[in-house]
Amino acid sequence: MIDCGEGAQLAFMRQRLSFSRLRHIFLTHLHGDHVFGLPGLVGTIALNGTGGHLTIHTFEDGARQLKSIFDYFCRDTPFEINFNIIKPEEAVILQTKSLTVRTIPLKHRIPTVGFVFEETPKPRHINPEMTRFHGVPIYMMNRIKNGEDFIRQDGKVIENSILTHPPTPSLSYAHISDTIYMPDIAEKIGPVSLLFHETTYLEEHKAMAAPRGHSTAKQAAMVARDAGASMLLTGHYSSRYHDDSLFLKEARDIFPNVILNKEGLVTNLD
Amino acid sequence: MIDCGEGAQLAFMRQRLSFSRLRHIFLTHLHGDHVFGLPGLVGTIALNGTGGHLTIHTFEDGARQLKSIFDYFCRDTPFEINFNIIKPEEAVILQTKSLTVRTIPLKHRIPTVGFVFEETPKPRHINPEMTRFHGVPIYMMNRIKNGEDFIRQDGKVIENSILTHPPTPSLSYAHISDTIYMPDIAEKIGPVSLLFHETTYLEEHKAMAAPRGHSTAKQAAMVARDAGASMLLTGHYSSRYHDDSLFLKEARDIFPNVILNKEGLVTNLD
Repeated sequence: MIDCGEGAQLAFMRQRLSFSRLRHIFLTHLHGDHVFGLPGLVGTIALNGTGGHLTIHTFEDGARQLKSIFDYFCRDTPFEINFNIIKPEEAVILQTKSLTVRTIPLKHRIPTVGFVFEETPKPRHINPEMTRFHGVPIYMMNRIKNGEDFIRQDGKVIENSILTHPPTPSLSYAHISDTIYMPDIAEKIGPVSLLFHETTYLEEHKAMAAPRGHSTAKQAAMVARDAGASMLLTGHYSSRYHDDSLFLKEARDIFPNVILNKEGLVTNLD
Repeated sequence: MIDCGEGAQLAFMRQRLSFSRLRHIFLTHLHGDHVFGLPGLVGTIALNGTGGHLTIHTFEDGARQLKSIFDYFCRDTPFEINFNIIKPEEAVILQTKSLTVRTIPLKHRIPTVGFVFEETPKPRHINPEMTRFHGVPIYMMNRIKNGEDFIRQDGKVIENSILTHPPTPSLSYAHISDTIYMPDIAEKIGPVSLLFHETTYLEEHKAMAAPRGHSTAKQAAMVARDAGASMLLTGHYSSRYHDDSLFLKEARDIFPNVILNKEGLVTNLD
């Protein structure tokens, strides 16, 4: 979960997600609208009697504040809450077998980071006809999947690309909120499958965006274009607007593949 | 406002209530489901730029916790937040021109109080025909409204009840949650216009109620009956039940005038 605004536990339940599968919460920054759902969520997980552990990735002072809240209001939590202390800088903050998570510093009114989630590259797919034809033994298969060439008994080298198909693409997601427009961030994000970039304002209110630490839809689209992202997800709209389609229109003038965020949206990255 | 669970600010907005009119929040106890909406509510009031002040009535350690949360997460609040430190005991905690608020200690898993809100007795209504007939001068009217008899120029005493009609009844509301069944509480509550008494359980699960610090619908109805309340409002139902009408049925067997609480309910006490 990335950020946890008030009511997040209800949204979680409406989506029929399982609390017991929630293991990591990444906090971009410590403004209330990104954090105030956390105590209630933790309390509900505690009530549901789910064991295990939950790791909250946040800055040191956020961890101190949250720990104090949990200690007082969620005393008998039957699961462990760990804090992974992060800093507003570029760093890898989590690495699992299948996933790497790194931070990118953003520019908002208080220290803020974006997160990039990248699946570990996956093994190549064996072409069974070709491995049979060239007599690749079973014990070699994992090495072939990982890209090795095969040397036949007769000494002939069979290139890996003959024995395998390309791997299933690794998916990646970048979450960039809240921030002013940072042109140089695109390079740090890279060609992700999906980029969420906040679009608090439209260009017509561009003059408000930077002083308040926010971006426009056009600026988000420029970041998506420059990063080489496959898809842009907009969101974090100012309540002054009543027609979300204006964000879509503005962004699509710059970058074609845009989807509008709204509560309950489910997007397939494949 | 009494207690402030997560999402209270949204419920507040759905009811089209005005944040600028919210001046007092009374907290019964410091369990998360009664408190976790407070930081978000305060943040939203701050965003709306409402000035003025807000008084939170709570225990000393709750005030300390909340102050720490507000100090960190709601730094630039343009209005003053005061804490009126209360204790889990019988006491008058607020007295205004039109209202008295007092606490009643309850028995829950942590220190908890109920609140009784009582309108100050109102002036009697002048009977204009009779005051004219007996020649009551204008400058005497307030004293007559407050119950004084009138002595005519000829020395004859005109009893107040001849000159006035009874005042509009003063309304009162008691909020009793969360608590085990306390038979002796009825006397402390008194004949209020409306009694909210928690009904977490039905009698069939009575054995669970006390150990968890809660009451049944029947027990709430007994308190309403013994207090001489005009009306009972049920609520705080355990999520194990899916048919609220069972609470109504159980309570009405003991006390006739019962209404079921549900989100958005508006009740007229007159």
